[in-house]
Amino acid sequence: MSSQRQRVALVIGAGPVGALAALSLHRRGWDVEIWEARDDPRGMEASKMTNLRSINLNISARGLEAMRSVDPTLAETMINESIPMASRMIHHLDGHTEAQAYDPIHGWHSNSISRPVLNQRLVEALPLEIKMRFNTKLSRLDLHSRKAYFTEHGEEEEVKDFDLIIGADGTWSKVRQEMKRVERVNFSQEFISHAYIELHMPPDPTKAGGFKMEPNHLHIWPRHSFMLIALPNKDGSFTMTLFIPFEEAKRLDTRDGALAFFQEHFSSAIDLMGKERLLDDLERNPRGNLVTMNVNPSTWRSHVVLLGDAAHSMVPFYGQGLNCGLEDVRVLNSYLEQHHIGSTATAPLGRTDPELSMALETYSKDRDADLRAICTLALNNYTEMRSHVLSPLYQFRRHLDYVLERLLPSKPEGELSLTNPFPTRKVRGWTSLYEMVTFRADIGYAEALRREKWQREVVSWAGEIAAIGLVGGIGVMSWLLFRQWER
Amino acid sequence: MSSQRQRVALVIGAGPVGALAALSLHRRGWDVEIWEARDDPRGMEASKMTNLRSINLNISARGLEAMRSVDPTLAETMINESIPMASRMIHHLDGHTEAQAYDPIHGWHSNSISRPVLNQRLVEALPLEIKMRFNTKLSRLDLHSRKAYFTEHGEEEEVKDFDLIIGADGTWSKVRQEMKRVERVNFSQEFISHAYIELHMPPDPTKAGGFKMEPNHLHIWPRHSFMLIALPNKDGSFTMTLFIPFEEAKRLDTRDGALAFFQEHFSSAIDLMGKERLLDDLERNPRGNLVTMNVNPSTWRSHVVLLGDAAHSMVPFYGQGLNCGLEDVRVLNSYLEQHHIGSTATAPLGRTDPELSMALETYSKDRDADLRAICTLALNNYTEMRSHVLSPLYQFRRHLDYVLERLLPSKPEGELSLTNPFPTRKVRGWTSLYEMVTFRADIGYAEALRREKWQREVVSWAGEIAAIGLVGGIGVMSWLLFRQWER
Repeated sequence: MSSQRQRVALVIGAGPVGALAALSLHRRGWDVEIWEARDDPRGMEASKMTNLRSINLNISARGLEAMRSVDPTLAETMINESIPMASRMIHHLDGHTEAQAYDPIHGWHSNSISRPVLNQRLVEALPLEIKMRFNTKLSRLDLHSRKAYFTEHGEEEEVKDFDLIIGADGTWSKVRQEMKRVERVNFSQEFISHAYIELHMPPDPTKAGGFKMEPNHLHIWPRHSFMLIALPNKDGSFTMTLFIPFEEAKRLDTRDGALAFFQEHFSSAIDLMGKERLLDDLERNPRGNLVTMNVNPSTWRSHVVLLGDAAHSMVPFYGQGLNCGLEDVRVLNSYLEQHHIGSTATAPLGRTDPELSMALETYSKDRDADLRAICTLALNNYTEMRSHVLSPLYQFRRHLDYVLERLLPSKPEGELSLTNPFPTRKVRGWTSLYEMVTFRADIGYAEALRREKWQREVVSWAGEIAAIGLVGGIGVMSWLLFRQWER
Repeated sequence: MSSQRQRVALVIGAGPVGALAALSLHRRGWDVEIWEARDDPRGMEASKMTNLRSINLNISARGLEAMRSVDPTLAETMINESIPMASRMIHHLDGHTEAQAYDPIHGWHSNSISRPVLNQRLVEALPLEIKMRFNTKLSRLDLHSRKAYFTEHGEEEEVKDFDLIIGADGTWSKVRQEMKRVERVNFSQEFISHAYIELHMPPDPTKAGGFKMEPNHLHIWPRHSFMLIALPNKDGSFTMTLFIPFEEAKRLDTRDGALAFFQEHFSSAIDLMGKERLLDDLERNPRGNLVTMNVNPSTWRSHVVLLGDAAHSMVPFYGQGLNCGLEDVRVLNSYLEQHHIGSTATAPLGRTDPELSMALETYSKDRDADLRAICTLALNNYTEMRSHVLSPLYQFRRHLDYVLERLLPSKPEGELSLTNPFPTRKVRGWTSLYEMVTFRADIGYAEALRREKWQREVVSWAGEIAAIGLVGGIGVMSWLLFRQWER
């Protein structure tokens, strides 16, 4: 007796993940609405947008594949808006620099893009059929009766009769908070003891493209317990971020202290950033927190799914926060496809839809291992970026990876498709962890982590065998020498 | 220029932990207020109180020592209100029972006490100088300006000018929620996939004390993936709890299903509980969640400290939730003593007090390891109670512990005192984990866990050495026999 009814989705949050999720469901034939607490970014000038959230993003294979899976032109737009970064540029304490290519074999690179620009382009790509409401905040959610309440200028508005609510509302997600009231949600949040402070290197109009440093790199000043990084912008400026323990950051609270700190550790950067601007930034800009969050399950019945930071906040050191969030959309879409979730609702309005429920539950169960893996990898990569990159042993391991990869190349075991989100279930051949995480959208994060553990063990055995061989060789030589001497 | 000002503490929650904390600070000379969302339990009849929260508590050394440290008569009151439990009484599937003494060496026991009675006695012990407000809920907290807002019948009341707020407001603590807004609080909540359902065994007036089973035991019906337990009450009844996976609990949703389930697994309990009452309880009573929560830090500046379930919710299988919460009060008090935090405020009102801040920070840092340890131990003990108690290997290990403990007894290395909350920093001699956790308030939980790991390793080495000895022995004997046979 069920009449033909189109499925309705409410997407909370019009950030990159929310916008892509909305477009993906719209393409599936759903009736989609987006609700966003901030301003409408469409048609906004670049200068105004930078006030929103100036941080740069690093978009690579997973993010691009996710966009391609919904609309190939989207990925092209973003590539045009971004600056390729083919290597890390290490700035040593004595001022000399050293480029470490991310992928010397294939020449793959990641891309620096302004968050507001990426967000604007994504929202502008949404068709008019998707209803969009800005400056309207989700104030509460009654998940049992499926009613959402939004406030705009103190006025409350009720929205009901939706099938699915998508929580793409970020690290401090309201949807997640409401889901935790009705479901046994395992949840953890863990801060690192380091803060981040955003800084800026303005362009120099006399230089090509305005860049004061070579643009096609992710610049790093690794100083063991802290580091400074710089990502290039289209206008010739660099967005810089200082990561530093909260305890140490107290040294930056006075202008004299801050200058002394920079002269000691980052003297090569002071002139490039401009001393007064640098000290102003250090004085004014907040000390941001860095948190890892894990959520499981990330879905509730057929009614809720959390995507992006709402489901997995991670520290930014692998450049995967955005990529993973966009990948959520691609993977979720593949589960909807595999469970034949079309545009027509099969359950009466307000009832749990058993097929959609099963699709979401399976998505959450399968995705959890990948989300945990990338959160762990992102934490580990902080030590790598601020310290290991300086170690000869790390350099040796990197070169060993490239040599082994040339000997035993690893190839995708199938094409990414709507029904096969990760065709390479078991990685064969040799491939560096960085490559698997950043450039290989055909491999899930958990598999990348598993494979790297195995590769690390192999290297360690090989080292032991080599050491035994060396000791044995020295023994044999000593014996031969001794015999010769005896004669 | 600071005038003599008495320190002011707001205690949120008049449960056992909040009441003891209030009394402890009052004895320290502080001005103390308690705010509680529920009814005033003073003078309430026992029958009315059971509606509040009927669950039984298991009070043992740590809880009693904590009360003794504030007021020795309190501990005596509780012992008089409780029923000693000297052993686990295992109810096997075939109906036969088997007592496993908790401590065959010293004869130590734990005590079953009704939660409402314990709570009532504690609140009644508070002197009139402690201002108490009931039916008033903390609605929000501005921790920076140090203002608390309470609501009663929709009316909001502001309370300001306090030095310290004590969050003793349980698992879903509002104080913790507000603290998480202003501080980087590491937090995790993890549910087990099992529910609990409360049941009841009424007294039989024809029996001595009304008890249908022997009263001085914690009764357990261990059935591997689930279990039923019973704790005695003063009125001759038993409070029973069924622990069961949520998935399996669906079998209890119909009366027929529930009866079949009980006939299959707990037939010996049906008549004792009364079939109709049992089926009514199973139909009516909610399926409760069991959650583990860890919070770190549990303090903020000199202004907030979380105690009890607000700081460490644990599953109930070690009977330590209450004991640990009361111990928090004793340990916190010892840090206040060691940091010379008297009754007179040394910082101007509204400012952070550096000494109190240091005392709280040190408390939080040191206490964290113990809280994590008991949360882990409580989780592990579920498997022990519902399954291991049936295993011969477990029985062997228990007896081995007693033999070794008689040979190498472990004694407290000092007296518990206000400045020395855990005199036994390193356990020497042999002692069972259960004894360390339940009967030895002189040992911190983390040390108990560490020592047990070591003891477990020793047993495992001994097993290996014995195995080698056995194999060697057989070898030698075979050789002798072979020689004899050769002759």
